[in-house]
Amino acid sequence: MSGYIAVDVGGTRMRAAYFPADSQIPISLKKILTQHPTESAWERLVQLVQSVWPDDKSVIRMGIAVPGPTDPYKGIIFEAPNIPAWKNLPLVYLLKEQFKVPVDLGNDANLAAMGEWKYGAGRGHRNLAYMTVSTGIGGGVILDDRLLLGERGLATEFGHITVQRDGPLCGCGQRGHLEALAAGPAIAKWVINEIDKGATSRLSGNTEINTKMVAEAAKSGDELAVRALERAGTYIGRALADVLHMFNPSIVIIGGGVSQSGNLLMTPMRESMEAHVMDAHYLENLTLTTAALGDDTGLLGALALARHQS
Amino acid sequence: MSGYIAVDVGGTRMRAAYFPADSQIPISLKKILTQHPTESAWERLVQLVQSVWPDDKSVIRMGIAVPGPTDPYKGIIFEAPNIPAWKNLPLVYLLKEQFKVPVDLGNDANLAAMGEWKYGAGRGHRNLAYMTVSTGIGGGVILDDRLLLGERGLATEFGHITVQRDGPLCGCGQRGHLEALAAGPAIAKWVINEIDKGATSRLSGNTEINTKMVAEAAKSGDELAVRALERAGTYIGRALADVLHMFNPSIVIIGGGVSQSGNLLMTPMRESMEAHVMDAHYLENLTLTTAALGDDTGLLGALALARHQS
Repeated sequence: MSGYIAVDVGGTRMRAAYFPADSQIPISLKKILTQHPTESAWERLVQLVQSVWPDDKSVIRMGIAVPGPTDPYKGIIFEAPNIPAWKNLPLVYLLKEQFKVPVDLGNDANLAAMGEWKYGAGRGHRNLAYMTVSTGIGGGVILDDRLLLGERGLATEFGHITVQRDGPLCGCGQRGHLEALAAGPAIAKWVINEIDKGATSRLSGNTEINTKMVAEAAKSGDELAVRALERAGTYIGRALADVLHMFNPSIVIIGGGVSQSGNLLMTPMRESMEAHVMDAHYLENLTLTTAALGDDTGLLGALALARHQS
Repeated sequence: MSGYIAVDVGGTRMRAAYFPADSQIPISLKKILTQHPTESAWERLVQLVQSVWPDDKSVIRMGIAVPGPTDPYKGIIFEAPNIPAWKNLPLVYLLKEQFKVPVDLGNDANLAAMGEWKYGAGRGHRNLAYMTVSTGIGGGVILDDRLLLGERGLATEFGHITVQRDGPLCGCGQRGHLEALAAGPAIAKWVINEIDKGATSRLSGNTEINTKMVAEAAKSGDELAVRALERAGTYIGRALADVLHMFNPSIVIIGGGVSQSGNLLMTPMRESMEAHVMDAHYLENLTLTTAALGDDTGLLGALALARHQS
């Protein structure tokens, strides 16, 4: 028997699994914290992969999803949020040296798009756009059954679509990008500011408000929290209209933690997208839906990448 | 000997040519006006193609570039500016019936991208973005050596990137799109408004001001005209930053009549693009240049399409 190793590296957690050649149900799966007081992220990664490696050593290929900007052609991570030592790291080279199998690397949002396309909500579609909304906002696009990468693998940066010229400062240094207005931290920050300005909410008085708390408050009917998700959904919908104009997909899939707010986010998002689209042809037979693979999307994307290459 | 028929249909002019199988120098080429007092655009098109058809009838395939939104998969024109009778016209079906050869159809901006990629400024690039700036603004993208079309062929509508939320009304019904701020008519309109508001310019007193007059005045140093091109270039540069973030090309090619203003447009465009890009990696080894094929870009794009399909 032979199979694939898939790895999903995040700033908080790393997951790895060994999959049979023809199934997406793993034979072994392990999840560990990325940060450790005495071990480096690289050491943690090597141990993790070793722990899921099959006894008979029959690995065809390894796929690995990493956060942050990467060069998938050269297998280099430019930088990884929360892993400051990984700057211009030739991860594919290092993994090949260590494990002696072919290795493919991809940006986590791109691979999540591949995962949803092959195994999730996007099965059967040839033209797919995936957006993840969590601490940041990322994207991935499949057109004509191929992942769009661009010259250096930097395509489909949905978080950096400008939705409000001269708007708030984005982490990248530009202003008014979607990520600065609608990612998790921006949603929480807006609620905090509104409470400071005197808005009433059951979240008032909390010293730390995060997106999860906002989502829960919204679900239980808190008006300010509902407005916070509506506002984020409206901005995301504007950006999605741009995504339709640029890529003309047949399905748009929304993933990431913030998407778990369900219709409180999805309904204003859909309305805003439809209101901002330039031509009704873009909406014909278009599906807008949430991701199907949950926390495993990166891992299954890494699996899809490895399979796609072999 | 055998070869290809290429056709470029515009609202003002139609061109057709017969090319040998392996050359982009036409054996026969003809250009006529699209509008005629007694003949329909379809009749004009059939006569035009017949006039360049080779005597030995050895045509491998026909490629045709058409303006406006099209479905390249089904060979249908949804609508064509200035040819109101061509609404949901199954042009590929009609041409096949008429001429008994395989026919491929494409949007003119998409095919201009193909033309520049195969024969013009983009030769040798695998990842290319083309923007045409004239009466409207259109786009075409080649990624990984393939033209991006999307589910219905409606991808890469660069004219409808939002550059000024709640800005002026675009022809499509939305607000603040690039086309409404930086296409030829928008440039002329801005100059007219400024003159109305009291700005001095050598164009003052003209009853009709068009983009060509603005470009000429700018070239001879008219300050208002220079500012008009700077303003358009700045908006286009903002949109180009979005194009880089979405497609990560290695070359951006600017075509269309307005691009003939040269550096008066290109310099502010480049500065604005560079100022709005989120990460310097997008600019590394990036070429920004004007189109090389001039008026023949659509025709050569139609040729490239026909060759690409056979």
